[in-house]
Amino acid sequence: MAYINENFLKLQHRYLFAEIAKRVAAYKEANPQADIIRLGIGDVTQPLAPAVVEAMHRAVDECAHSETFRGYGPEHGYNFLIEAIIAHDFTPRGISLTPEEVFISDGAKSDTGNIGDILAAGNLVGVTDPVYPVYVDTNTMSGRQISYIPCNEANGFMGDIPATKLDVVYLCFPNNPTGAVITREGLQRWVDYALKNDCLILYDAAYEAFIQDADIPHSIYEIDGARQCAIEFRSFSKTAGFTGTRCGYTIIPNEVTVNSLNGHRVALNAIWDRRQCSKFNGASYVSQRGAEAVFSPEGQRQVRATIAYYMDNAKIIRQGLEQYGLKVFGGQNAPYIWVRTPDGIGSWNFFDRLLREAQVVTTPGAGFGAAGEGYIRITAFGSHESSVEALKRIGKCL
Amino acid sequence: MAYINENFLKLQHRYLFAEIAKRVAAYKEANPQADIIRLGIGDVTQPLAPAVVEAMHRAVDECAHSETFRGYGPEHGYNFLIEAIIAHDFTPRGISLTPEEVFISDGAKSDTGNIGDILAAGNLVGVTDPVYPVYVDTNTMSGRQISYIPCNEANGFMGDIPATKLDVVYLCFPNNPTGAVITREGLQRWVDYALKNDCLILYDAAYEAFIQDADIPHSIYEIDGARQCAIEFRSFSKTAGFTGTRCGYTIIPNEVTVNSLNGHRVALNAIWDRRQCSKFNGASYVSQRGAEAVFSPEGQRQVRATIAYYMDNAKIIRQGLEQYGLKVFGGQNAPYIWVRTPDGIGSWNFFDRLLREAQVVTTPGAGFGAAGEGYIRITAFGSHESSVEALKRIGKCL
Repeated sequence: MAYINENFLKLQHRYLFAEIAKRVAAYKEANPQADIIRLGIGDVTQPLAPAVVEAMHRAVDECAHSETFRGYGPEHGYNFLIEAIIAHDFTPRGISLTPEEVFISDGAKSDTGNIGDILAAGNLVGVTDPVYPVYVDTNTMSGRQISYIPCNEANGFMGDIPATKLDVVYLCFPNNPTGAVITREGLQRWVDYALKNDCLILYDAAYEAFIQDADIPHSIYEIDGARQCAIEFRSFSKTAGFTGTRCGYTIIPNEVTVNSLNGHRVALNAIWDRRQCSKFNGASYVSQRGAEAVFSPEGQRQVRATIAYYMDNAKIIRQGLEQYGLKVFGGQNAPYIWVRTPDGIGSWNFFDRLLREAQVVTTPGAGFGAAGEGYIRITAFGSHESSVEALKRIGKCL
Repeated sequence: MAYINENFLKLQHRYLFAEIAKRVAAYKEANPQADIIRLGIGDVTQPLAPAVVEAMHRAVDECAHSETFRGYGPEHGYNFLIEAIIAHDFTPRGISLTPEEVFISDGAKSDTGNIGDILAAGNLVGVTDPVYPVYVDTNTMSGRQISYIPCNEANGFMGDIPATKLDVVYLCFPNNPTGAVITREGLQRWVDYALKNDCLILYDAAYEAFIQDADIPHSIYEIDGARQCAIEFRSFSKTAGFTGTRCGYTIIPNEVTVNSLNGHRVALNAIWDRRQCSKFNGASYVSQRGAEAVFSPEGQRQVRATIAYYMDNAKIIRQGLEQYGLKVFGGQNAPYIWVRTPDGIGSWNFFDRLLREAQVVTTPGAGFGAAGEGYIRITAFGSHESSVEALKRIGKCL
C-alpha cells in the first residue's frame, strides 16, 4: 500500500501567491473593465537586455545545426557561465572560488527549496519572520522543525541572533519581503554564531544587484569564516529579468561540512553534486548562454540601466507613500517596499481594500508570517508609469 | 549542529554516466588523436527541428519587448503547451485528460526523481533490474527500500509480476536500457496488480515516440484502471532533441490516490502541485514555446523524420551485430540495443575493450544493475555515418 509523505498534510492550505492570484482573478471576473496594476508578486516587467536576446538567438541557431547542436550539458552547468560568474561576481570582491564550487540551476527558488534534500530531517531550521514562504514550506515537506526569528521595527527588521542553537538558518539580504539590508558587522555576527554553534547558513542573495550603498556586502563570502559555514544562492531572475528564462546558481565552498551520525564531517559540495546529478539535468542551454551575456560589457550596461529604472520606481513609491503619512521601510537597496498599514488594519484587509478601491495588487505582509501582520509589500518591478499611477490611486483611497 | 541526510552516504560512489565520462576522458587524454564514437550516454545528435527553432526565436523576440515580455509562468506550465500535449498525445488515443492533470517540467529525469518527495519514506519501491539508475538513487536518497525485479532473457526482459506486495513500482517502456516493449496485455497485468495491491505505478514513457508497432501502447492510460493507480512521465528530450533545451511533462490523473496514516486517501495531483509550486518555478518560456512547436504539422513531420533516422541506425546496428554472431535485443521499438557480451565476458571489460580497440563508447549493462552484467547498451542516437563506422570497428575487435 502506497503512503503519502505525511509532512505535506501539515502545510498551510495554499501557497501565498496562489491565494493572491485567486483573489485577483475573482476581482477581475467581477470587474472585467478594471485596469489592475500588479505590484504584488515580485515579477519583473522590463524586457530581456538586448545582449541577452542576441546571445539566446545565437544559442538557438547553434541548436539548429548538427555541427553545433548541444544535447545534455553538465548537470553542474557550463564552464563558460561558471567562469563568467566567478570573474564578474566574486573575483572583484576578493572572493576566490573554483568552478566546482559553483552550481548552475534553473533558479534560486528551486535551489533554496531543494537544498533541504541533502540535510537530515532532524535539523532545527531558523527563518526570519516575515519570510519568503518557500523556506518554510519546503522544510515542512521534509519534516523539519522551524524556529522563527521575529523581525520588526524595534530590531530594524534584522532579527536578533538567537540565544538558542539552530542547526540551519536561512538569511536573505537584501531581504524579501522587508527590503532590509545587513551591514558587514551584522553579517559577521551571524557567521560567528554559525561557526560557534556548527550551524549551516543558507544565504539567499537573489537581490544583491539592487544594493546601492558601497559598504553593504553583496556576498556572504566577503565575511571572514563564511566559506566554512555558508551556502549562497543567486539568481538572474531579478538581476536580468530571467523570471521566465530560468537560470540561477548556488555556491557551495569545498570547506562547508556538516555532521554525520558516525561522527565524521561530510562536505556538502559533493553531496549536492550527487543530488543534482540524480534529480536535475542542467539548465537550458539557451538560458545559460543568455546568462553568460549578462556579464558582457553591453550586458552589464543594459542590466544596470534596468536596475536603476526599478530603483527609481522604488524611490517614487517610497517617497510618495511617506508623503501620504505612511510608515515605509526598504526600497533603498532592495526592490521591495515594506509598508505599515494605516490605522493598524489587517494586512489582508488592506490588500483587499487596495485591490477594490485602487485596483492595485500588493502582497499582504501576513502572508510572509505572523510578524508580517500589519504590513504590505509593494514591488518596484512595475513600469515607471504604473508605479506613478499606483501611487496616485493608493493616495485616493487612504 | 547541522546533520547530513544520511541516506546520501548509502549511495554507490559514482553515477554511472559520470564513471563512463571519466574513463572516456582518461582514454582521450592518453590518446588525443583517437576518433571516439559515443554511443554510450543516451544523448541525441540531430539538431532541433526547424519548426522548433523558429518558435524558440519567436519566443526570444517576445521577451525582448516589454509589451510581449514573459516573466514568471505558471509553475504548472503554460496552457498553450498543455493543450497541445492533450490534443496530440492523448485525445487521439481515446485518453481524456484535463489541463490540471498535466504538469510541464524541465524534464522527465527531474520528475521521476522528484516524485519521491511526495511519498512516504517507508514505501517499498520496486524497480526492474537492469534499471535507469535515477529511480534507485533518488529513492535511496529518501531512505526507501528497493526491491529488484530481475529482467533477463528467460522472461524476455519483462520481469515477472511480483508475488509480494510493492507499494510503488517504476515501469519504463520502451525500456531503458534493454529496449524491451510491453504489450497491452502485459501492461494490463501490471495495472491489475497495482489496483489489487494498492500499489502506485510510476510509468516512464520517455521513449514512446520510438514505438513502431501499432499494437504497443504509448501511454499507460490506454489500459483500463490506470487512471486510478498510475503517474506517467514524458519528455521532449528524445522525441524532439530537447536534451539541452529541457522540457518534459508528467501526468497525474485526479483519481490517483494513496494512503495517509489517518486512514484517508490523498489525491496526488494536488500534492504534486504543491511540491512543484514550492520547489520548482516552471520550465523556461522559450523551451515551452519550442515544445509547443513539436506539435505543429511541420514540427510533427520533422521530428518523425528524425525518429525514423535514429530507428534506421538502430536497425543497422542491430542487424550488423547479429551478423557478427552476437545476441541482440531491443532496437525495434526503442532507440536502445541491448547486446549480450561475447564469450560471457564482464560488461565493464567489454566496455573497456570497445573503447580501447574500437574507440566506441557504449554503456556497460552492469551499470544498470546486477542483471545487466554480461550485456552492453548501444544507442541509436548517433549519426548514420558514426553508427555504420562504429559497427565496422566493433566487427574488427570481436
